[in-house]
Amino acid sequence: MLNELDGHTILIGLMAYPIRHSMSPTMHNHAFKKLGLNYAYLAFEVGNETLPKAIESIRALDMRGSNLSMPNKQAVIPLLDKMDPTAEMIGAVNTIVNDHGVLTGYTTDGVGFVKSLDDEGLNIRGQKMTLAGAGGAGTAIAIQAAFDGVKEMAIFNRDDEFLDNAKRNVDIINEKTSCHATLHHLEDQADFKAQLADSFIYCDSTSAGMKPQEDVTLVTDPSWFRKDLIVYDTVYAPRTTELMKVAQRGGVTHVFNGLGMMLEQGAAAFKLWTGEDMPVDYIREVLFEADN
Amino acid sequence: MLNELDGHTILIGLMAYPIRHSMSPTMHNHAFKKLGLNYAYLAFEVGNETLPKAIESIRALDMRGSNLSMPNKQAVIPLLDKMDPTAEMIGAVNTIVNDHGVLTGYTTDGVGFVKSLDDEGLNIRGQKMTLAGAGGAGTAIAIQAAFDGVKEMAIFNRDDEFLDNAKRNVDIINEKTSCHATLHHLEDQADFKAQLADSFIYCDSTSAGMKPQEDVTLVTDPSWFRKDLIVYDTVYAPRTTELMKVAQRGGVTHVFNGLGMMLEQGAAAFKLWTGEDMPVDYIREVLFEADN
Repeated sequence: MLNELDGHTILIGLMAYPIRHSMSPTMHNHAFKKLGLNYAYLAFEVGNETLPKAIESIRALDMRGSNLSMPNKQAVIPLLDKMDPTAEMIGAVNTIVNDHGVLTGYTTDGVGFVKSLDDEGLNIRGQKMTLAGAGGAGTAIAIQAAFDGVKEMAIFNRDDEFLDNAKRNVDIINEKTSCHATLHHLEDQADFKAQLADSFIYCDSTSAGMKPQEDVTLVTDPSWFRKDLIVYDTVYAPRTTELMKVAQRGGVTHVFNGLGMMLEQGAAAFKLWTGEDMPVDYIREVLFEADN
Repeated sequence: MLNELDGHTILIGLMAYPIRHSMSPTMHNHAFKKLGLNYAYLAFEVGNETLPKAIESIRALDMRGSNLSMPNKQAVIPLLDKMDPTAEMIGAVNTIVNDHGVLTGYTTDGVGFVKSLDDEGLNIRGQKMTLAGAGGAGTAIAIQAAFDGVKEMAIFNRDDEFLDNAKRNVDIINEKTSCHATLHHLEDQADFKAQLADSFIYCDSTSAGMKPQEDVTLVTDPSWFRKDLIVYDTVYAPRTTELMKVAQRGGVTHVFNGLGMMLEQGAAAFKLWTGEDMPVDYIREVLFEADN
């Protein structure tokens, strides 16, 4: 079916910088087409300085909403009318829904992480997770996973600018959820190895392994990974990161990059805007067939 | 070719109210597709109250520009950075071009009128035109035609809210162009008939004949029209207006509705935004094949 834009087409945005190479426009527009929904999803190069006026455009043009990415996920919060409670706790917004001029902020990154594991038949509820990183993705994953029933969480971070955020995530989880979270230091390699040893899943939410740091991985010794540990890297460029290679060398069965999370965070936003389920399997095929 | 919206797609708007049933989005999006240009043209319901913020969105979202229609063609002027001299004289803007945040207002309605006649091999330069009406379309047609070389223009209006505008148009034309314009009153039927008698073209730019006034026409007697008079109605819904039926009964050879003008005003805006010529014959076929 052609994407026949006409006078009834409703706009949804993506406001970030840089953003032109994002896969999100292709993902959402293919999904609209497939379901015959009359929306258009377009990317706009918006940084913190132009963000207030860009957010005002959502109301002025009666857009259905927008996605947000770097550097706007935190900066957008004071510009919104309402916050979803989980997004508020995470302290970031990647999705805005416009209901007749009332803008509500959501974050679907954490939901996308948990859902991508559900898609693989892997249930992390009641289990222990070791999580590296406490940036935007790490925070969303930590808090959403804790809310969704992960029982124990060891959060690792370096002594860098995100350490305070890691502490904050641990405190929020212990205060607001039934998950027990603990703070750990990546510099303590013995502790890192020990926490991994009895974890159900290890997730690396840092930029290690991402272009141009393709050669970097926080775990270099395949023997640190049990075969039945789930190893999840939120990076998806390159498709197979250095961490994933280490896990594969260790014989790990379930090794994932961030594509599933990217897809499912999009599907969750799609549902908020349209009320419809994104045809995820179809979109996975359309987006990633070029990789095969 | 599919209209593959992606992260590089540039937005162009249409800001008016009501607007959902406009043909312009279909026209421009088909033309972008045909030429492989990565733009999307979307309609936004914008009235005078939301216009300032909607215009600000052109900058905030780095849109290439926008079309404007009722009720925004005059109200937009103080919101722009620059005005094309002809648009300034006409006192209306139907097209905005955004050059890196600098917004310039143009009007392509008059250009569209003259061009649509050129398309038919009819040259009104050096000739006499009788024109009924002095609203937005009438003003654009009068001033553009005068600039383009029409030698003599009899402008007719009722004693209504547009009479002052008709006077203004006559004054501007006589002051700024080499065309000689005169003001006439539609109430004076003998004068109306006399002016038509030696005109090369008669154009009705009023809403007479437009839904829901389908039965209305300013000329009811076919004998007022010579067979070689061009009869041009700017209305295109219905496709054959009451005026056109009278002209056809009078055996007039060249009888036109407003579709050609609509198409060519769009083509002129398209050229301003993209630098490319709209494939007008192809678009005419796509848009109007349903009528045949």
